[in-house]
Amino acid sequence: MTTQSRKSPDAARRSEASRRAILTAAFELVGEVGYAKLSIEGIAARAGVGKQTIYRWWPSKGAVLFDAFLALTEGQDGREAALPDTGDLEADLKTVLRATADELNDPHYDEPMRALNTEILQDPALAAAYAEKLDGPMKELKKERLRSAQRAGELSDDLDLDLAVEMLWGPLRTRWLERGGPLTHAYADRIVETALNGLRHRA
Amino acid sequence: MTTQSRKSPDAARRSEASRRAILTAAFELVGEVGYAKLSIEGIAARAGVGKQTIYRWWPSKGAVLFDAFLALTEGQDGREAALPDTGDLEADLKTVLRATADELNDPHYDEPMRALNTEILQDPALAAAYAEKLDGPMKELKKERLRSAQRAGELSDDLDLDLAVEMLWGPLRTRWLERGGPLTHAYADRIVETALNGLRHRA
Repeated sequence: MTTQSRKSPDAARRSEASRRAILTAAFELVGEVGYAKLSIEGIAARAGVGKQTIYRWWPSKGAVLFDAFLALTEGQDGREAALPDTGDLEADLKTVLRATADELNDPHYDEPMRALNTEILQDPALAAAYAEKLDGPMKELKKERLRSAQRAGELSDDLDLDLAVEMLWGPLRTRWLERGGPLTHAYADRIVETALNGLRHRA
Repeated sequence: MTTQSRKSPDAARRSEASRRAILTAAFELVGEVGYAKLSIEGIAARAGVGKQTIYRWWPSKGAVLFDAFLALTEGQDGREAALPDTGDLEADLKTVLRATADELNDPHYDEPMRALNTEILQDPALAAAYAEKLDGPMKELKKERLRSAQRAGELSDDLDLDLAVEMLWGPLRTRWLERGGPLTHAYADRIVETALNGLRHRA
């Protein structure tokens, strides 16, 4: 919102308050009514603003929801936390994948995340924005933890880190997306063990 | 359509012809206009049937599309082909994953599959039907190939085969879904090698 620089401080503060209210309303509402029934009208009513205020800033409900996800990560003092690094890669990955499973099991997140994934499936521009602004920074943190394990000799230097991330987080994501089974801590642990050790039988 | 058994042979034949025309029309049309613009009206016009004919058999466009996918697999003489089994698991998996990558890259399939995944994300009942009728039988064929590798000593007997399938096919699916990068044969090969060997460095 570069227009804010031309506004008075009070107007800028009111704009920011409206923006926050709209993003919060979008996130809450999609969790209650589902994405198909989410509407700009509904978000405006919940946020206590006019429809036009929303349309001035966002072209679609998908764009509002995307920014609501971005605001969630911004909320954490402007930057993502690094992954735990205790020196034990297997233990650290289990900690993180268990937390991911918990998040995917949380009804507060499940519906908004399904909505976001629906938009990503359909809209190449939003998929690119997701890759750049949401998934990209998260993926970089995951790769940073794997690089640390490479330095410690736990992982090979020539490992394809993008693929390693996909192999660790992909099964959880696929099972969630397809509702293919319970996302338990035992499942999270087994993913980590299987990915690290490989499928091949070793005598 | 159990009602067909009460119809005359001619009526049953006409019904089956209409059903096939509707499924073909749905599959073609979604590839041309995208899922958001796919409508029962459009499918009816393309298939040369009345809207009511479609509504008599299917409750939604998602349900029509789902049956269109089912019909594709039925088309192959009533059963799925087994995965190749040359005795070399790594080579066979590469053959299959390369074919999967080719299919995901084919514009003829890309849009219908995005539409199907959109419905699966939103609709638990369709997700269950997908798991039972489409993904389940495919997954069983994949597991059968892995069981053969277990018998040959290539894979451990205590391997979690569901997880193994997710680990092999999940990265390709995630990358396709998120448009996260090109789905090349080299990428397919690397998935197989990395999944079989594991991420862990071995001296």
